[in-house]
Amino acid sequence: MTTTTDQLEQVMAAAAAAAPVWARSTAAERASWLRAAADALDAAADELVPIADRETRLGETRLRGEVGRTTGQLRLFASVVEEGSYLEIIVDDADATAVPPRPELRRMLVPVGPVAVFSASNFPFAFSVAGGDTASALASGAPVVVKAHSGHPELSRRTAEIVAAALEAAGAPAGSLQLVEGREAGNALVQHPAIKAAGFTGSLSGGRALFDLASGRPDPIPFYGELGSVNPVVVTPAAVAARGAELAAGLTGSFTLGVGQFCTKPGVVFVPADAGFEASVAALVPGTTGGPLLTDRITAAFPDGIAHLEADPSVEVIANGTAPDGGAAPIVLATDAAAVTARPETLLEECFGPVTLLVRYSSEDELNAALRVVPGSLTATLHSEPGDDVTGILELLQARAGRVLFAGWPTGVAVTWSQQHGGPWPATTSLHTSVGATAIRRFLRPVAYQSAPQHLLPAPLRDEALPSLPHRRNNTLHLP
Amino acid sequence: MTTTTDQLEQVMAAAAAAAPVWARSTAAERASWLRAAADALDAAADELVPIADRETRLGETRLRGEVGRTTGQLRLFASVVEEGSYLEIIVDDADATAVPPRPELRRMLVPVGPVAVFSASNFPFAFSVAGGDTASALASGAPVVVKAHSGHPELSRRTAEIVAAALEAAGAPAGSLQLVEGREAGNALVQHPAIKAAGFTGSLSGGRALFDLASGRPDPIPFYGELGSVNPVVVTPAAVAARGAELAAGLTGSFTLGVGQFCTKPGVVFVPADAGFEASVAALVPGTTGGPLLTDRITAAFPDGIAHLEADPSVEVIANGTAPDGGAAPIVLATDAAAVTARPETLLEECFGPVTLLVRYSSEDELNAALRVVPGSLTATLHSEPGDDVTGILELLQARAGRVLFAGWPTGVAVTWSQQHGGPWPATTSLHTSVGATAIRRFLRPVAYQSAPQHLLPAPLRDEALPSLPHRRNNTLHLP
Repeated sequence: MTTTTDQLEQVMAAAAAAAPVWARSTAAERASWLRAAADALDAAADELVPIADRETRLGETRLRGEVGRTTGQLRLFASVVEEGSYLEIIVDDADATAVPPRPELRRMLVPVGPVAVFSASNFPFAFSVAGGDTASALASGAPVVVKAHSGHPELSRRTAEIVAAALEAAGAPAGSLQLVEGREAGNALVQHPAIKAAGFTGSLSGGRALFDLASGRPDPIPFYGELGSVNPVVVTPAAVAARGAELAAGLTGSFTLGVGQFCTKPGVVFVPADAGFEASVAALVPGTTGGPLLTDRITAAFPDGIAHLEADPSVEVIANGTAPDGGAAPIVLATDAAAVTARPETLLEECFGPVTLLVRYSSEDELNAALRVVPGSLTATLHSEPGDDVTGILELLQARAGRVLFAGWPTGVAVTWSQQHGGPWPATTSLHTSVGATAIRRFLRPVAYQSAPQHLLPAPLRDEALPSLPHRRNNTLHLP
Repeated sequence: MTTTTDQLEQVMAAAAAAAPVWARSTAAERASWLRAAADALDAAADELVPIADRETRLGETRLRGEVGRTTGQLRLFASVVEEGSYLEIIVDDADATAVPPRPELRRMLVPVGPVAVFSASNFPFAFSVAGGDTASALASGAPVVVKAHSGHPELSRRTAEIVAAALEAAGAPAGSLQLVEGREAGNALVQHPAIKAAGFTGSLSGGRALFDLASGRPDPIPFYGELGSVNPVVVTPAAVAARGAELAAGLTGSFTLGVGQFCTKPGVVFVPADAGFEASVAALVPGTTGGPLLTDRITAAFPDGIAHLEADPSVEVIANGTAPDGGAAPIVLATDAAAVTARPETLLEECFGPVTLLVRYSSEDELNAALRVVPGSLTATLHSEPGDDVTGILELLQARAGRVLFAGWPTGVAVTWSQQHGGPWPATTSLHTSVGATAIRRFLRPVAYQSAPQHLLPAPLRDEALPSLPHRRNNTLHLP
């Protein structure tokens, strides 16, 4: 069901018509629309989960959990809209004594306009039609046009129908959430004059192509892409000595979780040579079971990615798990830090699926040299002990990641105010997160109103509204 | 004095070496460095202003004022660094009762790394070597490499020497502020792997070329460009009736200020046909005096731009001012709303210099149709009376501007917390301001620290620091 050019124009006209209604909507209206979407999705879980399972093979337990994550996300953004700090309100009263005299200026953030969302294969709910990009865009006050992922077309259609109907029933305008399908429609979408920003979660090649289209427009738009991440992990010798078995079990659980199909999967793990950690991992992995991958393309790419790594003379296979018929079996490879430093393009490319690469290092210098060639990542994890001096390692990890973990594993991504899901290129194309409350900033731009009569100001900037909203006035912050 | 490839590599190595020192610097250090730069510039004003006047012909009064604006800007950013809200600190404590359990997460903004600044011709101090882009980048914790504007090379060199020496004397590392010269060096700068973001103020064509280079990198970087703006003004019939003479005087003063060389010059003014406003302007302009333009290129482009407008059959000249030998004389042109609606590419292109285009409208429908084709602008100004229903006009103006004025004229841009100097393309390439305190956000990215031991956290995120910094903890905002 490819969207035709004519259909796309109809979709864009509806989105453009909905945009001013969303922009004008009150916080209470917008929050109620988001909650209506969440309620409708929760109510439809019994219908949607089996469709999702058939199309993605992710299993009912995981998918039911993901519905909850998705509706929780919509409700979080409803509360973000109500709380109002996202408006970044700043008021400077007129100052006749300044040189030159200063007029009154009141600033807040307003929605950029219709947003395109390119959904992901690996989270058919939480990073898809009604996922985080959509929730944050709607919360900002923008209608959304989603490009359905080809990996779950039926789920995308039903989700869009359910959410669009719920939004309209709650009072939102027609055209608030719409779906397009097909690669050509996606390319046209990101170039359409009515689209003012785009969110994307997917591959480096696909994301780069869309980023180039967005940047190449006569009027370039921001393209918030999450493209690829190897999520480096560093384990110190002291950590292996103190809790090697626990760390090996943690790593094994993390890189095989969801059949290795998380953006935050630990893809490259720097381990001390000869500290026995490798043996602990090798002992555990044969007991792991893989499974079917999300799509035929990912299924085909997985052995190719492993073959690409194995072609490097430094790489050896140290452990294999098992898999049911046609599924992907977990696999652990190993190389050394010198090889990574010499050939990062080969050895540090993201490989989607249940595979991780151990990188043996013999000295901190060798480790640091290899860390310097690690590309930007969503996460970086350090397992060390209190006696370790990790200052240098930490500086290198922080410079290339958006989230730095000191315990645990990166595959859990809480949807909170504090979350940062984004990092230097190619992890993301932007200086913002795509998960958590502050993701809303991506779809907003500041507008300042100079010497405006009160009744012509947007409601949140009026004197009567300020006491109930976090704001700055004449250099001082105020809370409700 | 074109920077060679070898020299650029030395510059970039020094910037890269300075970056971690800036990133680690405390708020007190960074603020003292910014103030040292401001003090040194103030102390050198007597030397710098004559150089600036010789190179830009802007006159001593304006240039002395601009030095004050520039050093005030550096000191504002010192206070922004000390205040700390720009760090956007968010702490979520661990929650074992959440499903799934949530680890502790502490988020703040950190500098992106070395920043390239392309300085402007029309503000040789305030948007140049030590101008707003540089001040906000240094404040964020990033070393800066400035591409000097060819219009004031000697001033650029001396300013860079003075500021770099002051920074170093105050304790900042070598390489904190450096200068490169020449178009080729500028192109290489924005593509250099060590540069992580760029700021630019200049022309649409020059800015677009650099934006394309920044976006086309193997690792694209954010390019914050301010490219061009026609700054629409709407005058209602009631406003003309109530204060036509005052408005005509205000417009005449604004479009001729600084010989029309402000980014916020009112370039297109929608006026009621037959309300007499045009005659008021035509009566005043012959009494105005222009002057020399900033550079030979701008001098040559000014008559070309006017000729381009005059070539449109709808355009007529309604008034001319005078100018000393070789200077640009103020000129007012007029057309009608239907022509603008039909040929926006011709009639709504920014023309730098003392020229403005009156656009006659006979109905609100005609006005609205023309407003819909106005490109993104830094400002939009409405002069109306309390009895006017301006809802529709306002919605159109706000959709295409970063600052909406209800009185006065857009040429004054206060450097404050509330300022927004930026707007939809082509006004700027970004969802941020380039003037005022919040400009700092452009050079920062979020990093979240998960389950970090206190001593390994960046200082602002430690428990001991939080009480003195604005922050959010477990959904609640706290002020010092």
